[in-house]
Amino acid sequence: MRIVRSIADLRVLLKTLRAKGKRIGFVPTMGYLHEGHGALVKQSAARCDATVVSIFVNPTQFGQGEDLSKYPRDLERDQGLCLDWGATVLFLPDASEIYPSGFQTFVEPGGLAEPLCGQYRPGHYRGVATVVAKLFNIVEPDLAFFGQKDFQQTLVVRRMVRDLNLPVDVVVVPTIREEDGLAMSSRNAYLSEEERGRALSISRGLLAAEVAFHAGERKVAHLLEIARAALTEPMKGVDQLQYLELVDAQTLDGHQGEVDRTVALCVAAYVGATRLIDNVILAPSHDEAVLNVTLSPGQA
Amino acid sequence: MRIVRSIADLRVLLKTLRAKGKRIGFVPTMGYLHEGHGALVKQSAARCDATVVSIFVNPTQFGQGEDLSKYPRDLERDQGLCLDWGATVLFLPDASEIYPSGFQTFVEPGGLAEPLCGQYRPGHYRGVATVVAKLFNIVEPDLAFFGQKDFQQTLVVRRMVRDLNLPVDVVVVPTIREEDGLAMSSRNAYLSEEERGRALSISRGLLAAEVAFHAGERKVAHLLEIARAALTEPMKGVDQLQYLELVDAQTLDGHQGEVDRTVALCVAAYVGATRLIDNVILAPSHDEAVLNVTLSPGQA
Repeated sequence: MRIVRSIADLRVLLKTLRAKGKRIGFVPTMGYLHEGHGALVKQSAARCDATVVSIFVNPTQFGQGEDLSKYPRDLERDQGLCLDWGATVLFLPDASEIYPSGFQTFVEPGGLAEPLCGQYRPGHYRGVATVVAKLFNIVEPDLAFFGQKDFQQTLVVRRMVRDLNLPVDVVVVPTIREEDGLAMSSRNAYLSEEERGRALSISRGLLAAEVAFHAGERKVAHLLEIARAALTEPMKGVDQLQYLELVDAQTLDGHQGEVDRTVALCVAAYVGATRLIDNVILAPSHDEAVLNVTLSPGQA
Repeated sequence: MRIVRSIADLRVLLKTLRAKGKRIGFVPTMGYLHEGHGALVKQSAARCDATVVSIFVNPTQFGQGEDLSKYPRDLERDQGLCLDWGATVLFLPDASEIYPSGFQTFVEPGGLAEPLCGQYRPGHYRGVATVVAKLFNIVEPDLAFFGQKDFQQTLVVRRMVRDLNLPVDVVVVPTIREEDGLAMSSRNAYLSEEERGRALSISRGLLAAEVAFHAGERKVAHLLEIARAALTEPMKGVDQLQYLELVDAQTLDGHQGEVDRTVALCVAAYVGATRLIDNVILAPSHDEAVLNVTLSPGQA
């Protein structure tokens, strides 16, 4: 596995690989890797000839008062994991490499960036879209892999790829969970043991709604109520439910009445000082294929 | 010369060329071509193995009340010119190909888009940056050619290329003028004969300032006064001088006192209902190389 810190060196290395006809996969991360990232890297390694993993804690996607400065880091461990998972190149730029003096051009996503996390993290998806566009232009991958845990992010990125005609296929990989159901996240490291127990109410609520959905429940209000009950259970629930919404899985429009298309049930909640997000996709059977579409440039 | 209307067809064609190791040049235009475009296409043909010219009157760079609907068009003539100049591919997308339903992601340039035309055409450079980014991602050229006549545009595009790490070299080609000095522009077609005569005051003013500069004049106020005198001469000048500014040629910051670096003297003026722009670059000899730098991805 090659470790590269500069854009120029990475371009040279990748040019050589491309000249040999190698298919390049890319997994952008903020490090402090876990099995969720592992699923992305492994899928890339299986489908591509070379896999680039980037680790860059992107300052432009953090707001004032968010956890940029304390975001967890363990580069040595990350390197070992990337090697084990089959990465071929690890890209470790520093902030001045990505945002040199004079930087001023941003990618502005549209309506998909507004609801859900967009309401509570102004500028977050602008930062995400900008850094992902930059990394796509640096790596020029054939395929790029994102986790479904950051569901709104996957939609913003896919829309950006289509809107800006970026020549890359975006692949969304299902959320990886701990054995007890908690969605894997680097931010889980912030949780105390007591908080870790209550954080479980997030997946418990979502999975309970999913079970009800598969048993035939289609009323949006009922599905939300099932999830909310677990999330807000006294002593066992979260400290603050930031949002719990059932939205159209393609447009993120709030969905009312009965579920008649593929929807996403999305949560953001604080447990202690830690903000966690999670979601499940609920697909009426005739609509199940919708989310597994891989966007290709030809469709744009 | 191949004529292509869809993004998918263009990608297939260019993939074939790239696989053969062909170096691809790109000249984005809004059509109604003139010798200014000709200089770009010819330079591309000389430096590249294949030259793509796009003709697309980009709606997102026109404001309310601007001349989108009446922008001049003559596709048949444009095709003949492109062939004569050495273009190999003519890309003619329609608006729904570039902005399909649901389009919502824009490229937002920063401070370089704010002064000069940016003050009078809100959103203009956002539209320019967005469509140029899209076209770059569609064509994936090695080199892209822009005319110096749209000086601020060349800075916004170069900054975008650097900031978003687009893998393309931007080449800026000097302004081509009519024999009497008028900068070539598709919008010159709007001018009546009488207006055409007065439009000459723009280049006359700029060139008079340039002559004074080369004769040793360095006072910004004097240089501006020389240009202004021609531009506002009764009966012979423009109808409305929108701006006349002397700015740092790299930052577009207004320049005061004495010229001690490469600057641009920039004009926007109405002659009748037609808005025209023009500029000259004034470079103290030790600084002359600044503008001829071609940005390469490695420098980004």
